[in-house]
Amino acid sequence: MTYRAPVSDIAFALKHAAGVDKAIAEGLYGDLDEATIDSVLEEAGKFASDVIAPLNRLGDTFGTPFKDGTVTTPPGWKEAYTSWAAAGWNGLASPADFGGQDLPHAVNAACIEMWNAASMAFGIGPVLTMAAIDALHAYGNDDLKDRYLGKLISGEWMGTMQLTEPQAGSDVGALRTKAERVGDGTYRLTGSKIFITYGEHDLTDNIIHFVLARLPDAPAGTKGISLFLVPKVMPDGTRNDVRAHSVEHKMGIHASPTCTMVYGDNGGAVGWLIGEENKGMLCMFTMMNRARLAVGLQGVAIAERALQQAFSYARERKQGAGGVIFNYPDVKRMLLTMRGLTGAARAICYATAVALDRSLRSKDDAARKAAHERASLLTPVAKAFATDIGIEVASLGVQVHGGMGFIEETGAAQHYRDARIAAIYEGTNGIQAIDLVTRKLPLEGGKTVALYLDELRATVNAVRESNSPALGETAARLGEAIDSLERATKWLLAQKSSASALAGATPYLRLFGNAAGGCLLAEQALAALRAGDGAGRTALARFFAENIAVQANGLERTVTEGADSVTNAEAALAD
Amino acid sequence: MTYRAPVSDIAFALKHAAGVDKAIAEGLYGDLDEATIDSVLEEAGKFASDVIAPLNRLGDTFGTPFKDGTVTTPPGWKEAYTSWAAAGWNGLASPADFGGQDLPHAVNAACIEMWNAASMAFGIGPVLTMAAIDALHAYGNDDLKDRYLGKLISGEWMGTMQLTEPQAGSDVGALRTKAERVGDGTYRLTGSKIFITYGEHDLTDNIIHFVLARLPDAPAGTKGISLFLVPKVMPDGTRNDVRAHSVEHKMGIHASPTCTMVYGDNGGAVGWLIGEENKGMLCMFTMMNRARLAVGLQGVAIAERALQQAFSYARERKQGAGGVIFNYPDVKRMLLTMRGLTGAARAICYATAVALDRSLRSKDDAARKAAHERASLLTPVAKAFATDIGIEVASLGVQVHGGMGFIEETGAAQHYRDARIAAIYEGTNGIQAIDLVTRKLPLEGGKTVALYLDELRATVNAVRESNSPALGETAARLGEAIDSLERATKWLLAQKSSASALAGATPYLRLFGNAAGGCLLAEQALAALRAGDGAGRTALARFFAENIAVQANGLERTVTEGADSVTNAEAALAD
Repeated sequence: MTYRAPVSDIAFALKHAAGVDKAIAEGLYGDLDEATIDSVLEEAGKFASDVIAPLNRLGDTFGTPFKDGTVTTPPGWKEAYTSWAAAGWNGLASPADFGGQDLPHAVNAACIEMWNAASMAFGIGPVLTMAAIDALHAYGNDDLKDRYLGKLISGEWMGTMQLTEPQAGSDVGALRTKAERVGDGTYRLTGSKIFITYGEHDLTDNIIHFVLARLPDAPAGTKGISLFLVPKVMPDGTRNDVRAHSVEHKMGIHASPTCTMVYGDNGGAVGWLIGEENKGMLCMFTMMNRARLAVGLQGVAIAERALQQAFSYARERKQGAGGVIFNYPDVKRMLLTMRGLTGAARAICYATAVALDRSLRSKDDAARKAAHERASLLTPVAKAFATDIGIEVASLGVQVHGGMGFIEETGAAQHYRDARIAAIYEGTNGIQAIDLVTRKLPLEGGKTVALYLDELRATVNAVRESNSPALGETAARLGEAIDSLERATKWLLAQKSSASALAGATPYLRLFGNAAGGCLLAEQALAALRAGDGAGRTALARFFAENIAVQANGLERTVTEGADSVTNAEAALAD
Repeated sequence: MTYRAPVSDIAFALKHAAGVDKAIAEGLYGDLDEATIDSVLEEAGKFASDVIAPLNRLGDTFGTPFKDGTVTTPPGWKEAYTSWAAAGWNGLASPADFGGQDLPHAVNAACIEMWNAASMAFGIGPVLTMAAIDALHAYGNDDLKDRYLGKLISGEWMGTMQLTEPQAGSDVGALRTKAERVGDGTYRLTGSKIFITYGEHDLTDNIIHFVLARLPDAPAGTKGISLFLVPKVMPDGTRNDVRAHSVEHKMGIHASPTCTMVYGDNGGAVGWLIGEENKGMLCMFTMMNRARLAVGLQGVAIAERALQQAFSYARERKQGAGGVIFNYPDVKRMLLTMRGLTGAARAICYATAVALDRSLRSKDDAARKAAHERASLLTPVAKAFATDIGIEVASLGVQVHGGMGFIEETGAAQHYRDARIAAIYEGTNGIQAIDLVTRKLPLEGGKTVALYLDELRATVNAVRESNSPALGETAARLGEAIDSLERATKWLLAQKSSASALAGATPYLRLFGNAAGGCLLAEQALAALRAGDGAGRTALARFFAENIAVQANGLERTVTEGADSVTNAEAALAD
């Protein structure tokens, strides 16, 4: 069982859950119409299904052998990458002034899902290149842009994103890599980085590293960090003073080389400043937000891949008097849970991408600002909810397979292994939850989140007014979920003790994802009903509301009543 | 980080959650006293921690190479197994008349947890030997017992349990392996079996296979299955006509050889009947119930191992201004969740073992029967709840490690991979939930489960009467969870449509586990308070009640209100 991109599902979610239909109607996307979007998605789906997906299992078994400082990608990967880049996929949402196609981030998000569903290990490389492009475009000087943007956008070269050091993981401010001013406008970097995705490989002739480092006179912490562009190969064709020291042996995404990088064996790697000195975190946040949404899409992607495989197996596997296992209620519950969670996470990620588009394309400042805040609010939810459910759905996928799920040749196990990293990298899901609670809820004094809750309530009202019997208790259950979310939000905003708020951050994020995801599935059900073809989407929205959204009350109580038992639990945490 | 058996925690759970204290007081265990139990556990803990645990990672990387029909276990495994058996651990709870020590199953359960926490791949082998011993002792004829029981109990030989065939997984009745009567009291078996744990290996000179097969004139389905004892090496020292054909490449428990077995290359493997012809399922149920409890203990075991590693990492990993990550509320929530779920699952498994002991040792028939029903009720919960939380806790363990959790050398990833199988083998967790709902709830017209709910309520009352401020809202939350469990139970018992009941089986089992586990943690908290050392256990019981037991309402609604959205979801399950 390989992957077939669910193009019509994806297009439907883009239009009717994420609101691409409204954005088009408002003229946000210029003369782009739905038919053009459909054909882009169709082509992307073909490439993902036909070219990338067949490489996924080989990538898992071959890995990325490392020898004498070089990484060998699996057979066929370079050819696939080259033809992928040649088809223009890397620059889909990149600026037109450097060769990109300037299509909406929403459309690119759908494509990112497809590349990653075809193969997470393949998809993560371009994700980082795209993030690097955004940062360089926003903050690089003209000289750097002229030299690097075109080739990064075309995919001729790839980019990396280098934050982590052994003592500086979630705490980026603790990094020690040094950058010294040379006086000619360049810098010399010395130090090392760990966990660098695609830090070294043979897919492209050059690799452009985006590296956080610290100047000798920099203030401590995150206010003393600068961002540098450090090419593997210098403009004159010589090798820069940076190399991969080793490649990690990981549980999953084996075909994605995760490298330890060393800078300055011979006096320092040449780097060029991006943005201003000591303002590297500002530039990096641009990269991180794009990358966080993309990693959320990886969660959707691996969930979609796992559910396709589980559906296929369940339809073929004969067992007992019921015929195939697909017919058993307990298996149906697993399959519906997989599909419901995947659809909810997809809609949240796409909605985040549309908010990002609005933040860049809306006509007036106020609309751009509001959209930026919406994107800021949703990004941690998109990242953490989608990657959490990626793990859960992949685990259910193994379970549907029974004993075959534990056998590597079947492929279900690979999804379970691959899925696990997405909840960790680009900011662990705990960090996302803390970001949501401590930075995003207080945006505009709570107005940003309040406006979003109003939108969710409008969906619930529309469901109620539809009077559709097929939607069962959807309106009631989603309404209760939003009540819970609203109360939990208010409670968190009122906390004087940050420890109490932090203790509830993770269950709060899940509550947010369940409520928002449920509403976005319901939006799609309503749109399908209007189109006269609502049976599948109403049944899924109803399942989600009646079986998953009903966790809201328990999650709310965990947030609002459970904090004290966490923050005063020293005795329970003792040896 | 390796494993240190939490002997005092285990002893406390045995005595005060599972009720070994009461069983001793009633004279159920003869002259066995708590001090003797403590010293047995102490010795087991030493062996598990010092001898087995260090082999776990090597077992993962070495696997079980298969060549020319033979399996090589990892370096050091044979020595460890031999000294383990020589110390008498294999026969701890086995009948004294064949060399066993006849200690309680409850004590053996605690030891099984420790062997499996030290290494799941090591522990699963003896689990199957022990199950085979029980079946042979209960149903074998004297001749077979004389020939095989002693060596199985001493561990000189190991046993296997062979049900599964490609077309017969959860549906055991579909198996096709043939057994023909020879006329001399022996049978000749032909066919093949898959997924046979420790089907071939070099730990012992002989392997005694317990094989389900079908006689030529057998009725169809499970009523036509017979159980045979088929030794790898015949009494005269020649090889029997059975061999391993291949060994699976699995996601985890790499050091446990999972074999495809072939019977009858040369006319048929010689087998001896256990029990009566066509009554094999009866004998197999004895094996299965023991094995199911043991697999539940594997879930506890891998959770305990994962949590120890996560606690250790969190205490050492410095990050940010808070010092070590252990101090962060979000990390505390993860660690408390790990410890709470593990403690709850442990208590449920041990309580099941005590019920098993009572079913065998109680003085009068009525008490034995009631205990048998209690054990029957709890076994599917012990198996499925404990193995589900084993996966969740191992996944949290990876998350606590951040990026290091995804690197194989750290070890957290192995637990995540290993844990996954326990929810599948010995009856998938879906099968356990269906067993609970369709066979166990109706026991004695619902009286068995009603009596158990009464016991849980008594715990809640005791918590309330303790008036302990440290227990916070424990009584209220657990009381609500039992209310939910009771309503869901009644609803399930009243269902005319089996599909509706089956659709809610899995969330019902989780509700059961959460409520029962929460009460058993509270029992331990009360016992600790009485002993004047209650801080840790009250804090943990409170965390569980206020953060995990509060899921009860959502789970109840999923069971009682969500069924229709599962059974009438064809449209949502379509392509």
